[in-house]
Amino acid sequence: MKQIALLGATGSIGIQTLDVIRLHPEEFNLYAMAFGRNVDKALPLIREFQPRLVVVQDEETKDQLAKHIDQPILIGADGLIEVSVVDDVDVVVNAVMGSIGLPATLKAIQARKVIAIANKETLVTAGHLVMSEAKKYGVDLLPVDSEHSAIYQSLNGESKQDIHKLIITASGGSFRDKSREELVGVTVEDALNHPNWSMGAKITIDSASMMNKGLEVIEAHWLFDVPYDQIHVILHKESVIHSMVEFVDRSVMAQLGTPDMKVPIQYALTYPNRLDLPMTKQLELEEIATLHFDKMDTVRFPCLRMAYEAGRAGGSMTTVLNAANEEAVQLFLEGKISFLEIESKIERALEQHQRIHNPDLSTILSIDKETRERVRFHS
Amino acid sequence: MKQIALLGATGSIGIQTLDVIRLHPEEFNLYAMAFGRNVDKALPLIREFQPRLVVVQDEETKDQLAKHIDQPILIGADGLIEVSVVDDVDVVVNAVMGSIGLPATLKAIQARKVIAIANKETLVTAGHLVMSEAKKYGVDLLPVDSEHSAIYQSLNGESKQDIHKLIITASGGSFRDKSREELVGVTVEDALNHPNWSMGAKITIDSASMMNKGLEVIEAHWLFDVPYDQIHVILHKESVIHSMVEFVDRSVMAQLGTPDMKVPIQYALTYPNRLDLPMTKQLELEEIATLHFDKMDTVRFPCLRMAYEAGRAGGSMTTVLNAANEEAVQLFLEGKISFLEIESKIERALEQHQRIHNPDLSTILSIDKETRERVRFHS
Repeated sequence: MKQIALLGATGSIGIQTLDVIRLHPEEFNLYAMAFGRNVDKALPLIREFQPRLVVVQDEETKDQLAKHIDQPILIGADGLIEVSVVDDVDVVVNAVMGSIGLPATLKAIQARKVIAIANKETLVTAGHLVMSEAKKYGVDLLPVDSEHSAIYQSLNGESKQDIHKLIITASGGSFRDKSREELVGVTVEDALNHPNWSMGAKITIDSASMMNKGLEVIEAHWLFDVPYDQIHVILHKESVIHSMVEFVDRSVMAQLGTPDMKVPIQYALTYPNRLDLPMTKQLELEEIATLHFDKMDTVRFPCLRMAYEAGRAGGSMTTVLNAANEEAVQLFLEGKISFLEIESKIERALEQHQRIHNPDLSTILSIDKETRERVRFHS
Repeated sequence: MKQIALLGATGSIGIQTLDVIRLHPEEFNLYAMAFGRNVDKALPLIREFQPRLVVVQDEETKDQLAKHIDQPILIGADGLIEVSVVDDVDVVVNAVMGSIGLPATLKAIQARKVIAIANKETLVTAGHLVMSEAKKYGVDLLPVDSEHSAIYQSLNGESKQDIHKLIITASGGSFRDKSREELVGVTVEDALNHPNWSMGAKITIDSASMMNKGLEVIEAHWLFDVPYDQIHVILHKESVIHSMVEFVDRSVMAQLGTPDMKVPIQYALTYPNRLDLPMTKQLELEEIATLHFDKMDTVRFPCLRMAYEAGRAGGSMTTVLNAANEEAVQLFLEGKISFLEIESKIERALEQHQRIHNPDLSTILSIDKETRERVRFHS
């Protein structure tokens, strides 16, 4: 029985992680559960799964929740750390939004937990810190998103030295058939209408701007220790091949499937084994009949270009990229800027930043905060 | 340095195995080399690779060859066995045509050699004997053809119990766009014109009749210990995905590549590692742009249906299937029967045979001989 600490339980990945736990009560138990402020969504889940510990974002949410449950309720970043290092916990699923999950990940690594990682910030902003700790403590970082899980599965049983390149597939997002001219007037509603995957709002916007793929390239760089020149992105609108690895002998391994996040989530929980997922639709290639592939165009999608540039520059640049993007997407969702202004906000933030080499955790957190403020109020 | 005994050196797979050895002189050495009668083709290869031992098909070929080389020359099935069990040999590549390679494979397993297997008869006719010996002696059987190599690669690091199904892809062969009515008048030349792969004549005809896929299904059954109901064949005319494995969690692993047999050949020689193959074309999915998939139609391709039926019936039925097919294809290549008569010859041979359960090697060889004679002379 694997004891799980789930950080970010009420988000899209969190809910699907609970679906997986629910499917295999003899294999998994929810030991601890963290969420932000959504008590209405969390309460029935706490009643169903009966975690030993609960973490919420602030005192106010704690007070609200405490009337309904008996479990101890912890608060904020310290609470996330506390539940991530409990002796009884085997796997920490980090699916919180934003950089609040970062210190908990580092502490969980030091406590030698298996980390199932769905939090992009962890690797994008602090890949150098996280991976050196993971190496030091001999800890597995198991990716939860479909692309990195596909690469992880494709590397099963292989040697890293035999990798020739990683090939990450991109659906193209909600606006894949639009030219840049056609992007001028797009609405939030248009952007949230993703053709293949049902995901949270932030990641759906990132998908439309291709920043999602950019962040994935940076994550892949850290997770698999592969230089940026050996990480390629291709357009594949059906999202059937979730990603691939080409080896030195020109053999390409790929992982395919229907768009169901429960597959990579469960794989992260069961690796190196697998478990049944009877409700998940089987891939029927003969029904799909055709798979399409196309070159990625970084002029059409400047966010991908900026992500490669920030990744290659390294240091604090990826923190700026990520923070500027998060804030700009939020401004777009609030109706305060246009879709194309997301890109120009990020570009400006990167230009204005003086790169810091090998930043530590507090530097990353302060650059993150500073960048968000600049994007929101000063540019 | 791996010492290799190559059985079937002048055939299509043999020549490409020598290409791989030539590319990596620091990794591989040709210790022994067997061929049939083609001295003209073999002599420059013997001079180049300087194997310690040579095997030929008969005394006449030996006499002819002996004038030109100094190496000991062995003869026939006994010669194949002798070079397969030499202490210094690490890997036996069995790429001979027909059942003559079977006793050598069994002896090589007993001598605990790694077996790279490109000889279909070995598993199709004697899968029960070969796999029980392989299990008993803890020997790896490494498939050399692209489909089984793809499955083998997809199973790397996985547990057999997690397999849900094997999905073998079929290009459809030379006649994939023809109806059965259009097959009536096809010529040998038409049949030999395979759209994707450049292979020997026998396998190209088997590709057109879909018997090749049927034999692969039977091989996959033995090699991966998977029931026939869990082995599916789908049409995929580009032959880019070489085959796939679906696991219990609905995750599908696939191996892809350009059509170059050197990739699976080399993988069998390097497994579990890989080596560079710089001359092999990289897969460029963005150039290929589209991959197509379609249901397999066993009415259009009765050889595939007969292979499943023979496989499920088991015992000596697959020996009859294989022998009848080999002889019928030979008759077709000699211009003595039509393309569609290949199927009816096989169907009749299967109908006329009284199945023998769990046949031993001598029974297999006598049924093989008997079936060939019946197909050639009496039906």
